[in-house]
Amino acid sequence: MIPVHPSTAASARPRRGARSAAAPLRAGEHVVVVGYGPVAARFVEDAADLVAEGALRITVVGAEAEPAYNRVLVGEHAVGRTARDAMALSDPSALAAAGVEVLLGTTVVRLDRARRVLSLRDGAGAERELAWDRLVLATGARPNLPVLRGLNPDPAAYSHLPAGVTALRDLADAAAVRAVVARRGRVVVLGGGVLGLEAALAAAEAGCPVHVVHHGPWPMTRSLDAAGGALLERALAGAGVEVVSSAQAREVLLDDAGAFTGLALEDGRTLPGELLLLSVGVRARTELAEGAGLRTARGVLVDHELQADVEQRVFALGDCAEVLCRDPSCTVCPGRAGAGPSGLIGPGWRQAEWLAARFRAELRAVAGGGTAVVEPLVQGPEPAVRLKARAVELACAGTVSGEPWQAGPDGGSVVQWADGGAGSYLKLVLRADRTLAGYVALGLPRAAAEVGLLHERGTPVPADPGMLLRLDGVDAPAPAAPGPEATVCSCAGVSAARIVRAVDDGADSLDAVRRTTRAATGCGGCTDRVRRLVEEHAARVPA
Amino acid sequence: MIPVHPSTAASARPRRGARSAAAPLRAGEHVVVVGYGPVAARFVEDAADLVAEGALRITVVGAEAEPAYNRVLVGEHAVGRTARDAMALSDPSALAAAGVEVLLGTTVVRLDRARRVLSLRDGAGAERELAWDRLVLATGARPNLPVLRGLNPDPAAYSHLPAGVTALRDLADAAAVRAVVARRGRVVVLGGGVLGLEAALAAAEAGCPVHVVHHGPWPMTRSLDAAGGALLERALAGAGVEVVSSAQAREVLLDDAGAFTGLALEDGRTLPGELLLLSVGVRARTELAEGAGLRTARGVLVDHELQADVEQRVFALGDCAEVLCRDPSCTVCPGRAGAGPSGLIGPGWRQAEWLAARFRAELRAVAGGGTAVVEPLVQGPEPAVRLKARAVELACAGTVSGEPWQAGPDGGSVVQWADGGAGSYLKLVLRADRTLAGYVALGLPRAAAEVGLLHERGTPVPADPGMLLRLDGVDAPAPAAPGPEATVCSCAGVSAARIVRAVDDGADSLDAVRRTTRAATGCGGCTDRVRRLVEEHAARVPA
Repeated sequence: MIPVHPSTAASARPRRGARSAAAPLRAGEHVVVVGYGPVAARFVEDAADLVAEGALRITVVGAEAEPAYNRVLVGEHAVGRTARDAMALSDPSALAAAGVEVLLGTTVVRLDRARRVLSLRDGAGAERELAWDRLVLATGARPNLPVLRGLNPDPAAYSHLPAGVTALRDLADAAAVRAVVARRGRVVVLGGGVLGLEAALAAAEAGCPVHVVHHGPWPMTRSLDAAGGALLERALAGAGVEVVSSAQAREVLLDDAGAFTGLALEDGRTLPGELLLLSVGVRARTELAEGAGLRTARGVLVDHELQADVEQRVFALGDCAEVLCRDPSCTVCPGRAGAGPSGLIGPGWRQAEWLAARFRAELRAVAGGGTAVVEPLVQGPEPAVRLKARAVELACAGTVSGEPWQAGPDGGSVVQWADGGAGSYLKLVLRADRTLAGYVALGLPRAAAEVGLLHERGTPVPADPGMLLRLDGVDAPAPAAPGPEATVCSCAGVSAARIVRAVDDGADSLDAVRRTTRAATGCGGCTDRVRRLVEEHAARVPA
Repeated sequence: MIPVHPSTAASARPRRGARSAAAPLRAGEHVVVVGYGPVAARFVEDAADLVAEGALRITVVGAEAEPAYNRVLVGEHAVGRTARDAMALSDPSALAAAGVEVLLGTTVVRLDRARRVLSLRDGAGAERELAWDRLVLATGARPNLPVLRGLNPDPAAYSHLPAGVTALRDLADAAAVRAVVARRGRVVVLGGGVLGLEAALAAAEAGCPVHVVHHGPWPMTRSLDAAGGALLERALAGAGVEVVSSAQAREVLLDDAGAFTGLALEDGRTLPGELLLLSVGVRARTELAEGAGLRTARGVLVDHELQADVEQRVFALGDCAEVLCRDPSCTVCPGRAGAGPSGLIGPGWRQAEWLAARFRAELRAVAGGGTAVVEPLVQGPEPAVRLKARAVELACAGTVSGEPWQAGPDGGSVVQWADGGAGSYLKLVLRADRTLAGYVALGLPRAAAEVGLLHERGTPVPADPGMLLRLDGVDAPAPAAPGPEATVCSCAGVSAARIVRAVDDGADSLDAVRRTTRAATGCGGCTDRVRRLVEEHAARVPA
């Protein structure tokens, strides 16, 4: 819950940055949302009641022909694990009923800030203008495409890839992948990041022979230390994914019909396959903002109030935005460098909820003659990277370099456990006060959960860190039921107590709880746990 | 206890190697023991009753002017931790009463195997011959001396070192060290092996500033892996011992009076000091055997029955002997390469006890008209290396190389724990059957004890090796009283039950138990534990 105080001008809270230059949001203004992905969908959903009561107009412009769906689950969907229905993120009839206008299959080709209009092009190529008062950019990110012979890396047209080559970004990609997976075809993944590995593991689990090719010395090079990477590589091999590290791809080999047949490497090897998944990172879609003279770096630059311009007319959120306050002394964003697209759904949702709450507060404050005071959107610690796969359990975050026999950051220290036979690994990088600067946990799911909490909360690690290994010990007691306030769904920020209340209030299925609480609608990592909570509690509720 | 069977020629046990060429030991033969260190003392003590009953004559020839003392404790004695009395290993009056002849201050200058005589030289330089029927070589080892400007490395005369330079081998050395330690003088130790480190830690604990200089990349290079070595180096620094690794000593600096003032290194640094302890290894004293045409390598070569010649007239044991059967298919010594001096007292004592038992069995068998059958002296696994110091707890053994992310020996695996803050380290190198090929344990005394047992006994490591860390956990229960059959003193091979029996039989003090059982007479590592056992049990025995 975001604390929002419709308040008077006499508020004691000092505000950073002057709002005076900007016109506050007024009743009846037209807010146009560019992009219709999960983050846009959340903003629109949260603000729909303002439309219904006539306080705002909202139009959403989406390039795809379909309403918003959960892009994070495209990979799951491609291997047949997640149904299309479960990916839906918006309820078109509810939005229509509220009065939100949704333009599908429509591309924004130009942003004019002076005249406050967008130029739109529909699927038939027809152009028209759309006027706005406030603009919310939620254009997300697009996959990077490698420069390889055989590919035509037009960054604006990745969908024109050869047959059998895909970046697995939308539903059309997923359909192509599903065909290959169904016949257990050979899969080559280019890219050793967490998304490439998740796709590789899903394909291997579906029975496909899988190779992952990447140029780093070990998989997840940027998130893992060398030891963790080496153990991860062994775990992946055990799960049927062969990793080819320190490899440079040279050429995509195609047959006479132009379909993928293999990936040639610089060292002369060729990895044959029917499917090439490209997973070499994403970058923010910033062209509209750039064309309109807004500042961009790894994304559209916004301050921690998500403002891209000093007039407070253009906002950006989700993967297309980079939060980096103009004021280097900003205390809300202490020490945080701007970050590129995280690929995580949770932080974008937090931003969407915050912006809707801010708009609401401004409208109410203006109506009451005061000034809106909204608690700033505090950037949490950099979120953990979790590899979501059945065969391999991995979580890591923060600084993971350093060795136990060296001093850690700030006079801290490093703790390390590795069991090559069991394939388990735990590395804790401690500051002098024993809080975690970073960690890696592989094959130790309960320790990973506990360490993740210690990291998020800034809680010191116990003096005897060997205790953490007991959580996954052969004689460990069944895990205690999570406390009612424990977060179950970190994407949507939903606690166990909230889910149980929803069941009490009549949500008697996973889908019903999803609709009511938004739990298990994000990355899918908590779906099993939410289903279990619903089933256990529903059984106890008197019919 | 060594199983000895005086038996008939009809024994079913197949004997390896023909004894027929050799004359069996007969009553009244003269056994001469060369050397009077701890191993010789043990042999003489065990065989003294054969002398008393007139079955044998025994003469011991010792080069020092003092009866046998526990050389292993010279370092402890030098820093004032062990009294001279506690180092005594023989009871001259008891030997005299039995009829054993002891020649002190007497050097053996030549061994004549054809005529079966030794040439002796006494302290006054007078020479005489001594006839023998059987010869037991127990000449031990001498310290290696480095080739350094300022030292005159006459290997036969290490006692002619400059003032303030010592290899800490005998009581005279200990007296020189004690003087420097008493005034907390600066100490430089040359050599990063376990003995050098023990001396360094003892001196640091006594208040001396201490540097250890060695050429390996980390201390105890041959016994430790890189990670263990790095953590050991940190632990040593914490205990006041600065290790200078990868350093080449160049010159011993002396003042005008010829006394040590510092050690100059090849890199230009100088470590000033009042005392230089040389601890760069030992080598077996083999000159007598070489001069007599016996085979030598890293020691006097003997088979596993300790025989140096085919006639079975010359035996060697302790640090001067290298057990390496002539028959490469010998099943008693499976896969054991010959080893140089171990510096450990336990294995030498086992040999001394075995040889005395063998002589006894031969005499009885000959008297009964049969053939002696003595269980062969089985070489145990290579003994663990233990750093005996108050500030640093370290034990290691066997193969310690390999990393958790690599396959271990024979398809095994590696487990590793390191807590840089606590300074603890555990590395287990497992074979495919989960028995230990080797281990390192630093700062984890109870885990070290448990792992040491698993290694010695060839017991598989638990599937969840993290359990071992619990032994030293903050919440670990007080250690269970050791089972009555658990070995307390590994040098003398004495169990807790044996000690308790001795107390029951009237041994009411540490010294009394030492005399009765020999427990705590070796390396000194178990002294505290034996004392505690005696005190606890004596309190329970009705007066």
